[in-house]
Amino acid sequence: MSAKPRALVTNIPFAHLDPRPREILDEADIEVVINPLGRALKEDEYAELIEGFDILLAGTEPVTARVMDAAPGLKLIARIGIGLDNVDLAAARARGIPVTHTPDGPSPAAAELTIALMLDALRQVSRADRSARRGDWNRFTGRRLATCTVGVIGVGRIGKRVIRHLVGGFPGVRILGNDLEPDEAFGREFGVEWTDKETIYRTSDVVSLHVPLTPLTSNMITKRELGMMRGDACLVNMARGGIVREADLAAALREERIASAASDVFAVEPYAGELAALDTFTITCHMGANSPDCRLAMEMGAVAEAVRLINGEPLANPAPEAEYERALAAK
Amino acid sequence: MSAKPRALVTNIPFAHLDPRPREILDEADIEVVINPLGRALKEDEYAELIEGFDILLAGTEPVTARVMDAAPGLKLIARIGIGLDNVDLAAARARGIPVTHTPDGPSPAAAELTIALMLDALRQVSRADRSARRGDWNRFTGRRLATCTVGVIGVGRIGKRVIRHLVGGFPGVRILGNDLEPDEAFGREFGVEWTDKETIYRTSDVVSLHVPLTPLTSNMITKRELGMMRGDACLVNMARGGIVREADLAAALREERIASAASDVFAVEPYAGELAALDTFTITCHMGANSPDCRLAMEMGAVAEAVRLINGEPLANPAPEAEYERALAAK
Repeated sequence: MSAKPRALVTNIPFAHLDPRPREILDEADIEVVINPLGRALKEDEYAELIEGFDILLAGTEPVTARVMDAAPGLKLIARIGIGLDNVDLAAARARGIPVTHTPDGPSPAAAELTIALMLDALRQVSRADRSARRGDWNRFTGRRLATCTVGVIGVGRIGKRVIRHLVGGFPGVRILGNDLEPDEAFGREFGVEWTDKETIYRTSDVVSLHVPLTPLTSNMITKRELGMMRGDACLVNMARGGIVREADLAAALREERIASAASDVFAVEPYAGELAALDTFTITCHMGANSPDCRLAMEMGAVAEAVRLINGEPLANPAPEAEYERALAAK
Repeated sequence: MSAKPRALVTNIPFAHLDPRPREILDEADIEVVINPLGRALKEDEYAELIEGFDILLAGTEPVTARVMDAAPGLKLIARIGIGLDNVDLAAARARGIPVTHTPDGPSPAAAELTIALMLDALRQVSRADRSARRGDWNRFTGRRLATCTVGVIGVGRIGKRVIRHLVGGFPGVRILGNDLEPDEAFGREFGVEWTDKETIYRTSDVVSLHVPLTPLTSNMITKRELGMMRGDACLVNMARGGIVREADLAAALREERIASAASDVFAVEPYAGELAALDTFTITCHMGANSPDCRLAMEMGAVAEAVRLINGEPLANPAPEAEYERALAAK
């Protein structure tokens, strides 16, 4: 490592609400450069910028083999966030670069925004807002969450929190759950009915996605799955864009084959596709994790990994082996 | 009463999701006319339309002395809904016309939409949606409801339900409550800290209004009260438009003296005022009661009063005496 280790932060804004993450890097005598472009980096820009850095504190931009090769001294890729879909894990392993993430940081904020999007999709809040602003006073009618069957696909950190909000806050709601490894104890405590995905599509008033983007979940929701859903159902995606085939969702909404949908995540962000023209679709801007407390927890988590690296301590939250295996299997 | 009693329904749509309310009127041999204009009636139109009717199943349009005088045979004003602010109770009493409402009907749907508007105002959901649609990808940051102090003004049917959603669904939330007659047992059960309105304005992250519109609450929130609120606070109004002075709210939002606001109700509806041009304001279209189950409960409640009148039975939910007293005191 160079005399003074250098960290590149591509995830912006960084330490903008609370200075502590920056202060910790300063105290560890780590030189910090924050993405000077102030926006998501393209691969060319990324490869040019990363040269000479020891540590990458990464956002959601693709961290490709080419980006890694542009920084031969790179010793750590620390994601500020939970998703690892943007990091080429196979390439990182081949180069011996450890990858960490902050699995618990974003969950509370993401779970609350999920409830916001469910209520928005059911009651047509943002649609009413848009409509009233252009002079159309539409008194939309929508079901109450407490009377709905909500199907949660992916009952991990965020899915569980969503279920806690629903069961605690909206008594009467029925919860269907699907997970590769169902947490039976959690399910018993919160009355989750474990079932297959097809039953969730066919039965739910609200289908809510909380799986990581992996080769297994890529394009999980296409025309076929949307075709199984009820005509009055809503789809909420707080997970990752590539999980839902956007063209198929747009067609289903346009043809009123489902009632509404809301998504915080898109295959390409910033999103500027056809869904943005549809009345029954609600867009938020990949801001699931963006509460001040969760941003801070994520940044502190990633910064702590950088400090551990410098101090020669074991990393706390390395990317799970299952993610490496999936990445290698997909090659 | 004429050979076949005649009922005018001004609250539209009526029985559009479930035919039962209409069927009950038909079975009671009541002739039904539904507002043929398909929109809120002006006083002239109302007075012209109501002539010859025995029963009025009323929406939120002003039911004035002039409207009552245009229907000398009117024997019942049954509000489909809870608010009585649009009915001239003093005039109704002077003419011996009983007035009923459906106090429990709208509460569940109104309480859920309140939570939707709180989450929207905190996380800027509809703002993000508007912003993304015009090509601005803004990853807004907003506090989690579970970390907020929520001040509930008016802890009646709807206020209590809002508190149940919050305490059950968002553990960690702090609840301040203000009511003319605090329900101490409820407060103990849900950890409500009873306090004065000024403390609520000064302390809350979210101020939520659930009082009826009466001479006491008219213009309750003006420049003065908004000036007491925190710079990062949100205001949510699911009660009635006249409670908040809209020009003062628009100024407070424009000058960023509070963070955001959301309202389902306006002094004049359909709303087309200056708030509709503000980024930090969320508009919904007086649709608090509009879930299928609550619409049905309200319509069934009003229809049941009409049937009671026809059968000579006592009315179940007459307007509270306190409302008559307030109306008479304001004259």
